[in-house]
Amino acid sequence: MNDPIDRLRLIRTESVGPVTYRRLISRFESVAEAIAALPELAKAGGRAATPQTPSRAEAEREFAALHRMGGKFIFLGTPDYPSYLAELADAPPALAILGDATLLKSPAIGIVGARNATANGMRFAETIAAELAPSHVIVSGLARGIDSAAHTGAMRAGKTIAVIAGGLDVPYPPENAALQSRIAEHGAVIAEAPLGTAPQGRHFPKRNRIIAGLVLGLVVIEAAQRSGSLLTARFAMEAGREIFGVPGSPLDPRSKGANDLIRQGAHLTESAADVLANLPALSVPYGRTPTLPGFSEPSLAQAQRADAAELTRARRDIPEMIGADPVGVDEIARRCQLSSAAVTAVLLELELGGRVETLAGNRVVRFTDP
Amino acid sequence: MNDPIDRLRLIRTESVGPVTYRRLISRFESVAEAIAALPELAKAGGRAATPQTPSRAEAEREFAALHRMGGKFIFLGTPDYPSYLAELADAPPALAILGDATLLKSPAIGIVGARNATANGMRFAETIAAELAPSHVIVSGLARGIDSAAHTGAMRAGKTIAVIAGGLDVPYPPENAALQSRIAEHGAVIAEAPLGTAPQGRHFPKRNRIIAGLVLGLVVIEAAQRSGSLLTARFAMEAGREIFGVPGSPLDPRSKGANDLIRQGAHLTESAADVLANLPALSVPYGRTPTLPGFSEPSLAQAQRADAAELTRARRDIPEMIGADPVGVDEIARRCQLSSAAVTAVLLELELGGRVETLAGNRVVRFTDP
Repeated sequence: MNDPIDRLRLIRTESVGPVTYRRLISRFESVAEAIAALPELAKAGGRAATPQTPSRAEAEREFAALHRMGGKFIFLGTPDYPSYLAELADAPPALAILGDATLLKSPAIGIVGARNATANGMRFAETIAAELAPSHVIVSGLARGIDSAAHTGAMRAGKTIAVIAGGLDVPYPPENAALQSRIAEHGAVIAEAPLGTAPQGRHFPKRNRIIAGLVLGLVVIEAAQRSGSLLTARFAMEAGREIFGVPGSPLDPRSKGANDLIRQGAHLTESAADVLANLPALSVPYGRTPTLPGFSEPSLAQAQRADAAELTRARRDIPEMIGADPVGVDEIARRCQLSSAAVTAVLLELELGGRVETLAGNRVVRFTDP
Repeated sequence: MNDPIDRLRLIRTESVGPVTYRRLISRFESVAEAIAALPELAKAGGRAATPQTPSRAEAEREFAALHRMGGKFIFLGTPDYPSYLAELADAPPALAILGDATLLKSPAIGIVGARNATANGMRFAETIAAELAPSHVIVSGLARGIDSAAHTGAMRAGKTIAVIAGGLDVPYPPENAALQSRIAEHGAVIAEAPLGTAPQGRHFPKRNRIIAGLVLGLVVIEAAQRSGSLLTARFAMEAGREIFGVPGSPLDPRSKGANDLIRQGAHLTESAADVLANLPALSVPYGRTPTLPGFSEPSLAQAQRADAAELTRARRDIPEMIGADPVGVDEIARRCQLSSAAVTAVLLELELGGRVETLAGNRVVRFTDP
């Protein structure tokens, strides 16, 4: 019913992010219908020009290019999509994958940390990855330092998944190209960004949320304050995953992040046994096809419809409630006394009109060009 | 009323440990009376020979020798005795001190750790001691490694107390003789053992309990598992003091102890600020003369007396309840249906008879020659 080509066209449409994609999917009977409705929705949201949706030919070329590399797409809402990742409100609508896609259905542990790691930190990462790999897939971000050591250790004893920030054909950092190839052969490499994407600053937090979403627990080794690893830990906490901090000397600034996590309640972790003893029981079986609240693919769309009068009122009242400070969608519905169907419909229009942006935690903010 | 010479005679009496001393003090009108009663009590406890009490001349010689060194005694129950230390059930009945005795009435923080410390660990100990010393006296055990670094750092910015395991005239380890002299000049050195005592294994846990008793909080740096520093931490926990663990890499076995303490709830500590933010408010003012439950010197002895019939029964029933496994004094009283006055009286006899030994936590065990 939902043609993969149409899915990719909708995903690659300008102003359709992961949250908007999910809203569209739950509002229309098919992806094709959602695409057809885009111009009208964007216009209602205040945008003069129609959002650019790639043609079928363009989407087919992207499929073919990925296929030639030996990769494939895995779409949110299909049985192959990783169940735990699907729990994120902003789960990637599509993952491009090289390697063994069945690993996405296996229990996973993330290991992340400093790029400029100490020799000891890298040794610890490699050892704990090797000790956890027989029972769990090890997920990391293919960065220099701890990430690379974790992937390497994992492959000594099991499988690993590298989540990368750019396209699958743009290994980053360049010196990890060989490691990426080995992982693609013996594990899996996944990317949210289209082929050809060179990773930029804004791509790394998106990559980090995927690592957090894939895993039952996240081990943080040598993370400085305000580091990407701590951001991954925050995403993982928000997603209800277990956090494991490896302590270090106060004299090394690279210890600060993990020590802070421990102070905030992360499990103080000195060995694989500390991790295994504190992993949660599997609440969502990894092998299951996700059918999540607000997201009932493949049987799309039984969304409640708002009546015309309510929509008119919603289109008038909602825009002025959304300013530079994030506001909860629930709060908008309560303050405007509107049904959630009306609020959702109008937020979708405003997103597609390029006027609001949806943040994690079901909050929205006025869109400002970056 | 209580002649210091008599006090010292009672304290130095064979089979009179700190707990027995406190029991005797609370049972008799004066120390002299307690000494006079010793032969009879020991006999009731099953000992053929009278416990050896030093003569007045012997005690006077010990006073004189300490005085010649420039030291003095501070007795439990007198105004100069440190209030927090007096809270321990087995507080030392007398401390021999060289240096500034007023430091015992100042708020104190303990810093302890590995003898075979890393250069980083010693640097950290020295720094944190110097940062805490302006507001708190720094207490440690004059051992190699962390202890020495803590004393040295403290003297850069304030005062320090060294608690030693042997006699004041037996510096240990020998290479710390000069450090001990400096501390005696600029701070204080204290010992429970008589002059001339060369420290043996059994003296170190006794030294550790004094460190724990003196301080509001204890900072543990680089303590291996089953180390003396962890024993000090356990004493401090039992005494209700705050515990501060300095984290370290899991790859160094010297980190294991402090990391374990953090896992058990010690404050993860990276700086002096972490310590100061988590110190308890002073519940017993340091300057106060201790008047504690069960210990009401200088107005001695209003202890309840057991009647003769009950004492007879207690002497018959209690000994067989005390075996190789420690048993609580409360449990003995409950199981034998005896008043606590009768139980206390008979336990005192048994201790002086050399048949039972009192442990921390108000428990007793059958005495076996070490």
